[in-house]
Amino acid sequence: MSSALRIGVAGLGTVGAGALALLQANREIIAARCGRPLLVSAVSARDRSKDRGVDLSAVRWFEDAAVMAADPDIDVVLELIGGADGIAKTVVETAIRNGKAVVTANKALMAHHGTALALQAEEAGVALAYEAAVAGGIPIIKILREGLAGNRVARIYGILNGTCNYILTTMRESGREFGEVLAEAQQLGYAEADPSFDVDGVDAAHKLAILTALAFGCEVNFAGVHTEGIREISAVDIAYADELGYRIKLLGLARLVGEGVEQRVHPSMVRADAPIANVDGVFNAVVADGDFVDSTLAEGRGAGAGPTASAVIADVIDIARGLRLPAFTVPASQLRSLPSLQMERHEGAYYIRLMVLDQPGVIADVAAALRDAEISVEAMLQRGRAPGEAVPVVITTHDTQESRMIEALRRIDALATVLETPRMIRIESL
Amino acid sequence: MSSALRIGVAGLGTVGAGALALLQANREIIAARCGRPLLVSAVSARDRSKDRGVDLSAVRWFEDAAVMAADPDIDVVLELIGGADGIAKTVVETAIRNGKAVVTANKALMAHHGTALALQAEEAGVALAYEAAVAGGIPIIKILREGLAGNRVARIYGILNGTCNYILTTMRESGREFGEVLAEAQQLGYAEADPSFDVDGVDAAHKLAILTALAFGCEVNFAGVHTEGIREISAVDIAYADELGYRIKLLGLARLVGEGVEQRVHPSMVRADAPIANVDGVFNAVVADGDFVDSTLAEGRGAGAGPTASAVIADVIDIARGLRLPAFTVPASQLRSLPSLQMERHEGAYYIRLMVLDQPGVIADVAAALRDAEISVEAMLQRGRAPGEAVPVVITTHDTQESRMIEALRRIDALATVLETPRMIRIESL
Repeated sequence: MSSALRIGVAGLGTVGAGALALLQANREIIAARCGRPLLVSAVSARDRSKDRGVDLSAVRWFEDAAVMAADPDIDVVLELIGGADGIAKTVVETAIRNGKAVVTANKALMAHHGTALALQAEEAGVALAYEAAVAGGIPIIKILREGLAGNRVARIYGILNGTCNYILTTMRESGREFGEVLAEAQQLGYAEADPSFDVDGVDAAHKLAILTALAFGCEVNFAGVHTEGIREISAVDIAYADELGYRIKLLGLARLVGEGVEQRVHPSMVRADAPIANVDGVFNAVVADGDFVDSTLAEGRGAGAGPTASAVIADVIDIARGLRLPAFTVPASQLRSLPSLQMERHEGAYYIRLMVLDQPGVIADVAAALRDAEISVEAMLQRGRAPGEAVPVVITTHDTQESRMIEALRRIDALATVLETPRMIRIESL
Repeated sequence: MSSALRIGVAGLGTVGAGALALLQANREIIAARCGRPLLVSAVSARDRSKDRGVDLSAVRWFEDAAVMAADPDIDVVLELIGGADGIAKTVVETAIRNGKAVVTANKALMAHHGTALALQAEEAGVALAYEAAVAGGIPIIKILREGLAGNRVARIYGILNGTCNYILTTMRESGREFGEVLAEAQQLGYAEADPSFDVDGVDAAHKLAILTALAFGCEVNFAGVHTEGIREISAVDIAYADELGYRIKLLGLARLVGEGVEQRVHPSMVRADAPIANVDGVFNAVVADGDFVDSTLAEGRGAGAGPTASAVIADVIDIARGLRLPAFTVPASQLRSLPSLQMERHEGAYYIRLMVLDQPGVIADVAAALRDAEISVEAMLQRGRAPGEAVPVVITTHDTQESRMIEALRRIDALATVLETPRMIRIESL
């Protein structure tokens, strides 16, 4: 058996403690699989006295994670601190500069600095691995980089945020509104006290930017992700989606369009019989469409100590086995700079819901606005009658360009008989 | 860029032609991902004149695949001939003996000779890769061997045969019987003229034996797989399954039980809301339960030229990148010899359907037979009344040992009022 791989762990929060627990619980089986032992050589965290359920008495302790990252007796640094900049970035850059492999669970860091870090790692000849940054319970980085490496990927999409999926699933099952379900999710620990990072789609956008670079061999471009969250989704829209044969999911989707790439995170209506429509609760799923493999889906837990630790340690095992691939499959210097498609140029179908005054001529006015924007209606639903009062009208359209839809919605919103700002949800054909 | 990896392709049927088509279509992208080109250096097939849609004029042609496997100007041999023995085995062994890496799509070969071939490959210091042998559209070998390598896997199961899944899905959707749907599947090319390899579960059992070895680090033991097919499944059982909230799927399942391993392929009733219950048509899916990752599912096409070629070439790319891992994760010499659990000792719940004479006392007799075998009834359904005629009675049980169920069914079958041999389907809690 070869010599031990010496690990330095920066950050002992939920993920760090989970990684240590995994290494302890499965030490022997991992050593057999790697052909060498994995040894936790050093750790760095703020509070030394905290009980993390793992015996750290024989492990060197660093007050400063960046100092640990330069330590000559460490082969791999696990960056489990988090945050797009600051100490996390310093730790990763220091480790690379000192010739150490890096494993990170940090999606914000990879989304903002992935290309630059990949370049640094390749120049230094070290691995930069980040399986845990996207959907910990799904080895999607490995699937894309290796399992589907013979394919040209045309589209990749997924449910990338468990908090949003839990909220949308619960709203559908209970008929309750967003605010109430969010509050419950916070009590259960499925949502943070400040939920904006999750419910506004930022977390999913980080992950999508990473997947896009990997799938299409382009630079990571987080700024190019069109991002919307789920705060505006209401129970009535979820009920209409059901009636129309759809589910509403917060999807992240990237595809090649012409000479560029479309990257977008927003609530989508997907057909109820699409495999991803049935991925519920805190689960994540990713679908990749390859030219030879066709469509392939992977589903698992997106977060939590165990699944994230599983992903972190899978990366460490790869490194222990000697695997060192470019972070985004092709060398970082060869990553293409692909322009992001402006959302106004998106082509797709739409669901819109209006609250209108129930009086003659309203539907004609709405239909005229759509016609003037050259939008073709697929279906229209008006439920119940309440002369002189507000009633919902739901319209689905055939494919059109988003700029036309924006124009039509502007005109519809201006109608005196339309009582609320229209709601729009994109329909995704998967 | 490094020197080309020189490939010899043995067998140019659907899979071989697909692999060549993929290498041609995606040559440049693959070279960028590998850091070196992949070069088809030689091929071997029976009929040289056949048009396979790929230009082979610049490629050396071997009449004898075993001679090609010994050729000094080849680095990797793709064995795409098929069959557990004969020329396929000779080609693989010759290639290994001559220090060449081997990629095979041959599940029968790996199921029957996997351990021995892994030993030979490791002694020769070459890779033996077989991603295409199990569910081509799902990189499940890589997921288990690498993506979940930090986990102790307790159970693995899946829909491993697309033909059976297509037949069962179509039977459910159309209400038709097995024979009729099979005939249609044969017309559509989803089933072979001689369908027994698929519908009797042998193909799924080959794949399960391979997955078992990989998941649990044990020797491949195809003989230890309890195997039943789907010929006995009738439309009425599928309808009852629906009514009870289940789907009927041909599952392959392996789990550690005590000091041994349970490996079984048979029709199973699974809860309709289980993710795998909604994998329909020709799609395959595999679920692995790991101690840290929890449950993770992968779904994709199980067969066909494109998905299988995708898997074959993923293995070739791994080899071009320098990856060489033991075939079953741990070195072949360390694979455990785990005894197979006898099916009579299986513990689980059961569905049974009887055709009984509608007369007083029948249910009491059936219930007594179950009680005498110490089997606890979960639910009993008797639909309609037809005094003096045959009516179906459906019973589901709580967990019991299969030996008890066999005893109970023997007694029930002997009752004069039970008109047909009882049908039994195992209920799987997933």
